[in-house]
Amino acid sequence: MSKREEAHLLNFIAEAGMLKRVKRSGWWVLGIKNSETVADHSFRCVVIGYIIAKMEKVEPYKVLLMTLFNDIPEARLNDLHKMSQRYIKLHEAEDKVFKEQISRLSKGIKGELAAMHQEYRRGVSSESIIARDADILECLIQAKEYEEHGFKEAFRFMKKAPKFLRTKSAKKLWNTAKKAIFVFSVYFNSSSFINIG
Amino acid sequence: MSKREEAHLLNFIAEAGMLKRVKRSGWWVLGIKNSETVADHSFRCVVIGYIIAKMEKVEPYKVLLMTLFNDIPEARLNDLHKMSQRYIKLHEAEDKVFKEQISRLSKGIKGELAAMHQEYRRGVSSESIIARDADILECLIQAKEYEEHGFKEAFRFMKKAPKFLRTKSAKKLWNTAKKAIFVFSVYFNSSSFINIG
Amino acid sequence: MSKREEAHLLNFIAEAGMLKRVKRSGWWVLGIKNSETVADHSFRCVVIGYIIAKMEKVEPYKVLLMTLFNDIPEARLNDLHKMSQRYIKLHEAEDKVFKEQISRLSKGIKGELAAMHQEYRRGVSSESIIARDADILECLIQAKEYEEHGFKEAFRFMKKAPKFLRTKSAKKLWNTAKKAIFVFSVYFNSSSFINIG
Amino acid sequence: MSKREEAHLLNFIAEAGMLKRVKRSGWWVLGIKNSETVADHSFRCVVIGYIIAKMEKVEPYKVLLMTLFNDIPEARLNDLHKMSQRYIKLHEAEDKVFKEQISRLSKGIKGELAAMHQEYRRGVSSESIIARDADILECLIQAKEYEEHGFKEAFRFMKKAPKFLRTKSAKKLWNTAKKAIFVFSVYFNSSSFINIG
Amino acid sequence: MSKREEAHLLNFIAEAGMLKRVKRSGWWVLGIKNSETVADHSFRCVVIGYIIAKMEKVEPYKVLLMTLFNDIPEARLNDLHKMSQRYIKLHEAEDKVFKEQISRLSKGIKGELAAMHQEYRRGVSSESIIARDADILECLIQAKEYEEHGFKEAFRFMKKAPKFLRTKSAKKLWNTAKKAIFVFSVYFNSSSFINIG
Amino acid sequence: MSKREEAHLLNFIAEAGMLKRVKRSGWWVLGIKNSETVADHSFRCVVIGYIIAKMEKVEPYKVLLMTLFNDIPEARLNDLHKMSQRYIKLHEAEDKVFKEQISRLSKGIKGELAAMHQEYRRGVSSESIIARDADILECLIQAKEYEEHGFKEAFRFMKKAPKFLRTKSAKKLWNTAKKAIFVFSVYFNSSSFINIG
Repeated sequence: MSKREEAHLLNFIAEAGMLKRVKRSGWWVLGIKNSETVADHSFRCVVIGYIIAKMEKVEPYKVLLMTLFNDIPEARLNDLHKMSQRYIKLHEAEDKVFKEQISRLSKGIKGELAAMHQEYRRGVSSESIIARDADILECLIQAKEYEEHGFKEAFRFMKKAPKFLRTKSAKKLWNTAKKAIFVFSVYFNSSSFINIG
Repeated sequence: MSKREEAHLLNFIAEAGMLKRVKRSGWWVLGIKNSETVADHSFRCVVIGYIIAKMEKVEPYKVLLMTLFNDIPEARLNDLHKMSQRYIKLHEAEDKVFKEQISRLSKGIKGELAAMHQEYRRGVSSESIIARDADILECLIQAKEYEEHGFKEAFRFMKKAPKFLRTKSAKKLWNTAKKAIFVFSVYFNSSSFINIG
Repeated sequence: MSKREEAHLLNFIAEAGMLKRVKRSGWWVLGIKNSETVADHSFRCVVIGYIIAKMEKVEPYKVLLMTLFNDIPEARLNDLHKMSQRYIKLHEAEDKVFKEQISRLSKGIKGELAAMHQEYRRGVSSESIIARDADILECLIQAKEYEEHGFKEAFRFMKKAPKFLRTKSAKKLWNTAKKAIFVFSVYFNSSSFINIG
Repeated sequence: MSKREEAHLLNFIAEAGMLKRVKRSGWWVLGIKNSETVADHSFRCVVIGYIIAKMEKVEPYKVLLMTLFNDIPEARLNDLHKMSQRYIKLHEAEDKVFKEQISRLSKGIKGELAAMHQEYRRGVSSESIIARDADILECLIQAKEYEEHGFKEAFRFMKKAPKFLRTKSAKKLWNTAKKAIFVFSVYFNSSSFINIG
Repeated sequence: MSKREEAHLLNFIAEAGMLKRVKRSGWWVLGIKNSETVADHSFRCVVIGYIIAKMEKVEPYKVLLMTLFNDIPEARLNDLHKMSQRYIKLHEAEDKVFKEQISRLSKGIKGELAAMHQEYRRGVSSESIIARDADILECLIQAKEYEEHGFKEAFRFMKKAPKFLRTKSAKKLWNTAKKAIFVFSVYFNSSSFINIG
Repeated sequence: MSKREEAHLLNFIAEAGMLKRVKRSGWWVLGIKNSETVADHSFRCVVIGYIIAKMEKVEPYKVLLMTLFNDIPEARLNDLHKMSQRYIKLHEAEDKVFKEQISRLSKGIKGELAAMHQEYRRGVSSESIIARDADILECLIQAKEYEEHGFKEAFRFMKKAPKFLRTKSAKKLWNTAKKAIFVFSVYFNSSSFINIG
């Protein structure tokens, strides 16, 4: 691998590092100043993607990649929340960025990521449906948690989101989650973590 | 004024309030996590706009409005830094937002703000040139300050910006500012605030 | 304009920059750690001042200046909340600071700002009454927003403030605001931003 | 899947959510107050793990899982930096936590994660060596970035870490990274992101 | 005193300084991101220790030392919340650290601190019981305050803690505190600070 | 002790709690946004006060009280940095506040704290000189640490402060501290914590 190829891989790592600074802006709309980063969100998306894939008996590999790189264009675009998408064609912009982001990566990586991105965008394969559900579920659970932290409107803020869940597993998880309390119960020596009443 | 008209004015105030939460994302690129808000930036833009207008012997009123409302579309768009503008047509998006933001305001306000926005966009009048210079100068001085706070690359980050200054007054202020040290000298009983060597 | 005069203008810009770091301390009393800056607050004061001036059919220019520079002494004094004013003569200290802050600015600016400050302090002219109302209304709306963000005592904290509003327009805006919910409704495709029930 | 099994999966998701709040404490030692979260770090570890796996021609799947769940015990243990490990047997504590964290998950997930954790702990397989290198490289690059952000001692702080890198690919990436500057060059229309001189 | 002895005292001061950066991690479990530091907590522990000692008619000196240095091992261990103590023997680790922290201090200091630490650990003397109560009461009052700041589960989070209070004075203070509202009433010209209904 | 007396003690504890939110504003002047709290500072002042007292062979008890309560008036006054003291008579305001803060506390506490405050203000006794030195030394060491964290002007900012140190011990500690590097050396298995070259 040439010096130049390594530099392009480092560039890509630096873009992932940028996501450790980009704040999730949708929560600002709700009044949450000190919101988590895009990297924070992506991390849990991958975890949730893995779990749903397992529940749905789908090989997790592609789901992991989709959830991992889904928001990498935000390193160049900043986080564009729902409201901004009334004015900006998000998918178009993201596609342009992603293409540039991977354009100089070594062939094996570039090919795999390009195919994965396209499959995700089409939203037809099980993997892409699961990855999308993981993204929505992460937001919903985060909203639930923020509601416990005092942001009273968090629930209303997300009220349409559950309708977009498509897998049976994600729907079931959300049905349980929405009634749970997310203060760690293990703290109180109970047998389960969250409190599901 | 009807209840409805009042509500639209409150909406507008709520949008200005959103800017107290939207973080200036350009500094994230530079590595500054805890960057100031758009409202923070806009505040000093108005101050600088007022000063340049006075120096240039131009009536400040329109400059004040231009600098005050210049970034109000970011309440709906989030802050789009230079890099994102490779992929998104910022002015087009901003124009669409601003039009919507003022569309239901009472006539007197709507008319004045629409005219002001157009004049700023054209960039021909003295007022619009000063307002633009105030925006650039605010960023340049902030970069200078961040450099003093340890962000070594801040200067390089902004190296092209000074070329876009157009008024004599803004250029002169920058020439002095770039050599100054922004720790408050009054602290040490000196006669001036900043230290200009 | 001499080098020295420019330096004094830069000093003044550096003081405005300080307000991007000074935190509004009244909210700390209420328990809000991560409160907004004085610059954040001043920014929305100018916006609200502009709106009330328009509603009251008063030329906004002086209102803009009054709201813009009202808190500039806090660059040297820190933010002195209501409780501290039991022990410190705030107006006296502010007047001393403001006089020093503008003392070396070029004549045109110094004269205008001195006159504006005096008029604001007297509180007789329509402009000064509007500027004061803008300051109060900004705090009230912010308290309303913080209450939505979980700070249950925010309302009680501000209960005396509405009595100090003097213009009809500010009173009407507050009457609508206090019943509204400030989560952006546009997010949910409704026709207005805030939700006024 | 029973209600109870779902609740245990939600528990696990809540633990991943905890990592969005746990701060990386090693950087505090260096003086960085506002350090990133464990989730931030883990996110980029997965990205780097993927890249090294590809460079080393190893199937990435297990590397993805190892880097993703490597720090999940910190949801219950807090982040234990190098110095604390003089006094606490970190691996022993982590193993105990991880065992509990997965003990009630559905069989398929539990089995896979247990095997993956053991393989990582043994550190013999290519996948485990790559995952470990990804963890080290993420820290090294972050230190490099923090050094650009003013923390002068960041380099010295990490001086021993490069010696622990084992794959050729990770070593090469670090050799390039340590000379690079991580301010995004794309900002200045250059052809590559980071500046490698 | 030799250069070397001074350096060891400085080391100890640097460790105390580390506590200004270490965040209290128990609150993260509850959802509070921006929690106070260990130094913040220790400061109020000393204040409360002083008050309880006075109420209990016990000489405060040893209580002051116990509350002041109680958490100094966290400079090396990070803050280990309740949940982590299921997996880590906290006291054992703390004792090891404390021993090292004071091992090279000059004799007078080392002797006094070692004796004080042992007495605190035994928990038999009045002073050690008061110091422990001060620690618990600080947490309980902080939880009460966080509850007012929107964290609804704060009370449930601490429900077992009051049972561990042992002095009559601490119990009485908590009985009053748990019904109070901690917004400063002096703000409203009332005769007492907190509102006890 | 009556219900009312307890309430006043709780008030006092609530005031100490306020210091966990009040930010040290002097550092804002220097450009440090995310500065420590007054409680953070006071905590280390007590630690340093204890050390200097021991070095100077003075009974530490009164020094502990002086350093512990020195900044408690800032709960009502906010933190008034050096610059603000050009315009506000700090000692006068502090004395007024402190008198009120302790006025309703039970006799034993009130008497002791009043005497301690007076002795500190007079600045004649060894204890008061040591307490003052502890306050200065805490700031100087913090400035040294901030300088390591990138704030280049930190040293210049504090250049006059060392002249005000009066005890031999504080002077010696500062002479060693100013040449040290405060990154924890124990991290690298060295025998001392800070690096004194």
